[in-house]
Amino acid sequence: MRAVDVIASKRDGGALSREEIAAFVRGVTDGSWPDYQISALLMAIVLRGMTADETTWLTEAMVESGGRVDLSGLPGPFVDKHSTGGVGDKTSLVLAPLVAACGGMVPMMSGRALGHTGGTLDKLEAIPGLTTAIDPDGFRRQLESIGCVIAGQTETIAPADRRMYALRDVTGTVPSIPLIVASILSKKIAEGIDGLVLDVKAGRGAFMKTEEQAGELARALVGTGKRAGLRTEALITSMEAPLGRAVGNALEVAEAIEILKGRGPRELRALCIELAARMIAIARLDPDVERARTRASEALGSGRALEKFRRMIVAQGGDPRVVDDGGLLPAAPQTARVPAPRDGVVTGLHAELVGRATVALGAGRTRVDETVDHAVGVMVLAAPGTPVAAGDPVLELHYRAEKNLPEALQFAARAIEVSDVPVPARPLILGEVT
Amino acid sequence: MRAVDVIASKRDGGALSREEIAAFVRGVTDGSWPDYQISALLMAIVLRGMTADETTWLTEAMVESGGRVDLSGLPGPFVDKHSTGGVGDKTSLVLAPLVAACGGMVPMMSGRALGHTGGTLDKLEAIPGLTTAIDPDGFRRQLESIGCVIAGQTETIAPADRRMYALRDVTGTVPSIPLIVASILSKKIAEGIDGLVLDVKAGRGAFMKTEEQAGELARALVGTGKRAGLRTEALITSMEAPLGRAVGNALEVAEAIEILKGRGPRELRALCIELAARMIAIARLDPDVERARTRASEALGSGRALEKFRRMIVAQGGDPRVVDDGGLLPAAPQTARVPAPRDGVVTGLHAELVGRATVALGAGRTRVDETVDHAVGVMVLAAPGTPVAAGDPVLELHYRAEKNLPEALQFAARAIEVSDVPVPARPLILGEVT
Repeated sequence: MRAVDVIASKRDGGALSREEIAAFVRGVTDGSWPDYQISALLMAIVLRGMTADETTWLTEAMVESGGRVDLSGLPGPFVDKHSTGGVGDKTSLVLAPLVAACGGMVPMMSGRALGHTGGTLDKLEAIPGLTTAIDPDGFRRQLESIGCVIAGQTETIAPADRRMYALRDVTGTVPSIPLIVASILSKKIAEGIDGLVLDVKAGRGAFMKTEEQAGELARALVGTGKRAGLRTEALITSMEAPLGRAVGNALEVAEAIEILKGRGPRELRALCIELAARMIAIARLDPDVERARTRASEALGSGRALEKFRRMIVAQGGDPRVVDDGGLLPAAPQTARVPAPRDGVVTGLHAELVGRATVALGAGRTRVDETVDHAVGVMVLAAPGTPVAAGDPVLELHYRAEKNLPEALQFAARAIEVSDVPVPARPLILGEVT
Repeated sequence: MRAVDVIASKRDGGALSREEIAAFVRGVTDGSWPDYQISALLMAIVLRGMTADETTWLTEAMVESGGRVDLSGLPGPFVDKHSTGGVGDKTSLVLAPLVAACGGMVPMMSGRALGHTGGTLDKLEAIPGLTTAIDPDGFRRQLESIGCVIAGQTETIAPADRRMYALRDVTGTVPSIPLIVASILSKKIAEGIDGLVLDVKAGRGAFMKTEEQAGELARALVGTGKRAGLRTEALITSMEAPLGRAVGNALEVAEAIEILKGRGPRELRALCIELAARMIAIARLDPDVERARTRASEALGSGRALEKFRRMIVAQGGDPRVVDDGGLLPAAPQTARVPAPRDGVVTGLHAELVGRATVALGAGRTRVDETVDHAVGVMVLAAPGTPVAAGDPVLELHYRAEKNLPEALQFAARAIEVSDVPVPARPLILGEVT
């Protein structure tokens, strides 16, 4: 099978066969397809699309390109959550210990910050001493003893995705539902889980700007997951404004700890409970979602989830005292407040612009090889719906280098929307695909 | 300007600016765009197309990627012809000396065989001793003294096209009218010519299978040529059956010499005269096409065109005696005849299959790094319209290696179409775009 013939078939709008897709993924994995042929096919896929069958075959071939996490002998049930990326989204830090506290096992392999969105690994690594580079044996042992682990992907998980994603990033071939679906699901299926709950973000801080686009992605993810034999469901949630009040690695860890203590912003806590309940239900720990909500809520209130988090920190080499003493987390030396431009009501905080402000401060990455500053970030002082007078602080920038401040201030000022008339609050959870 | 942004713009169906196209072509030429970004953009262009402006800017940027032939001080007028590729098309061998004999200067840079189509350079090199690798000084001197030269492209002519074409060939991005137009015209404009006549082939032996597709390509070529400041026109000609009776390098040289002697197949001669007349007219040697036809016809009849051909051979180091003694051309040691399968009339000779038979014998290339056998090829013994009895020879294979014969015979047998009822002959010239 010649690469150029596979490319030409997709270029002309044809559906590729399972064998053609397998040949492509093999070529990506073993290096026999050069970059230029891979990127030509990727662009043809972006513009011509893929059928449900093709997307499933692509996902399965990408799983088979590497190994799976060995969970044999562990009791399970194994369950995970994946978010399509937002600003201030620290739910993974809460959900792994929370669902473990409810009897599930969460073998979470997560990613890093890129662009205006944060990454779970970077956030967790804000805890002094903590590592997310865990070998397969350690991963397994931690899962057995604690029930949750949050680690980086090992080299053996979906290697085809790694090469493909690196190319997609530089060839304008990221925005393609079949490619996004296969990339997400291949890595999750390789974790060996029984069930997966997806949090598909919609809005100006998300990759999918409209609820309609997010719905399309959610349906493709759930449909493909099920075809590939994985119990999958999705929530579609709003990413117009940052999730919670904290944006930036250590700031978000502190807020996640608040949630694990049964406190923190109400909406963020509600989303964590809803996602945990879905995970508990899909893992069949309790098929009744209403009861699962109560169970998740109790695990927060009782401190059992927090205890799992503490043990996870210890197992991953971090300093567990951060749970009781937030002062042990890295903190930025200086803060600057961004005021309301006029009297009125805060009607919006543009999530992408807040994300960009955070990146400008050094908390994120514009290129994969950059390092992040765990201390810096943005705190929301006046969330949407809050009445303000001109000059009242709305955002607070936690910064280290003066030179980063002007750009961050600019983004932050542009993010703030104040009107005379309050706009009705939209729900955070917009829909579900089951 | 980031490559990935240019790619994304075309991916989303936008029209690229002159600056974006210039950045792309610079990146191709100086190597600052890696292959994978070039091929992603090429695929996006194939699927999204280009406006007339974009195609013109691409053409001009590709011209500027290298140098131009220095024709300063030569009287001109400079004129050339380009065919989009067919089977048995030896008109260039005739037209360069023919138009030179009519007072034009033809600085023809030509190409090589690839796939089922032949290449002018390979054909000409069938003449013992002849070279088509001519340095700029020699090129200029020969043009001055004889009025015509047929040479390979130098490294300095449209280098962007060379890299781009090599990638298009292996990434399924050949079939795109804007890319084809820019590739053809950039090289021709860099020749420094005043006028260009295009022979756009339509039919099963051509790249464009239908008259409609060929018309679209012809209109894009002529429109873009004119926008780029080059007087351009096109004939659309049929490529259902091979052009003339000879297919293969030395065999085609012999047939071209027949035409230059005022003999040879009637239809081939008529096409040469028509193309020459268009070249004479567009070069403004004589704006009246009817008079130009007469002038071309006389140059064939008088032997003046043949004399130019003889001098061109000498100037390029070849043995001019081949003009008088065809026995000096390389000849295949053996022949095999392919019979009519039944009584009837030959109604078609599938040009692509005849081309593939010729390639199977060794006359062409399936990869650019293969060498060609100048001696082998296919002769048409019974052209379309000829009544035949079952077993009568229709094609004659001139072969060297026995091992090549079975595949060639298979293609040749499949190429022959015999019916009870003759089909009306279609004209060779299907249309024009001026």
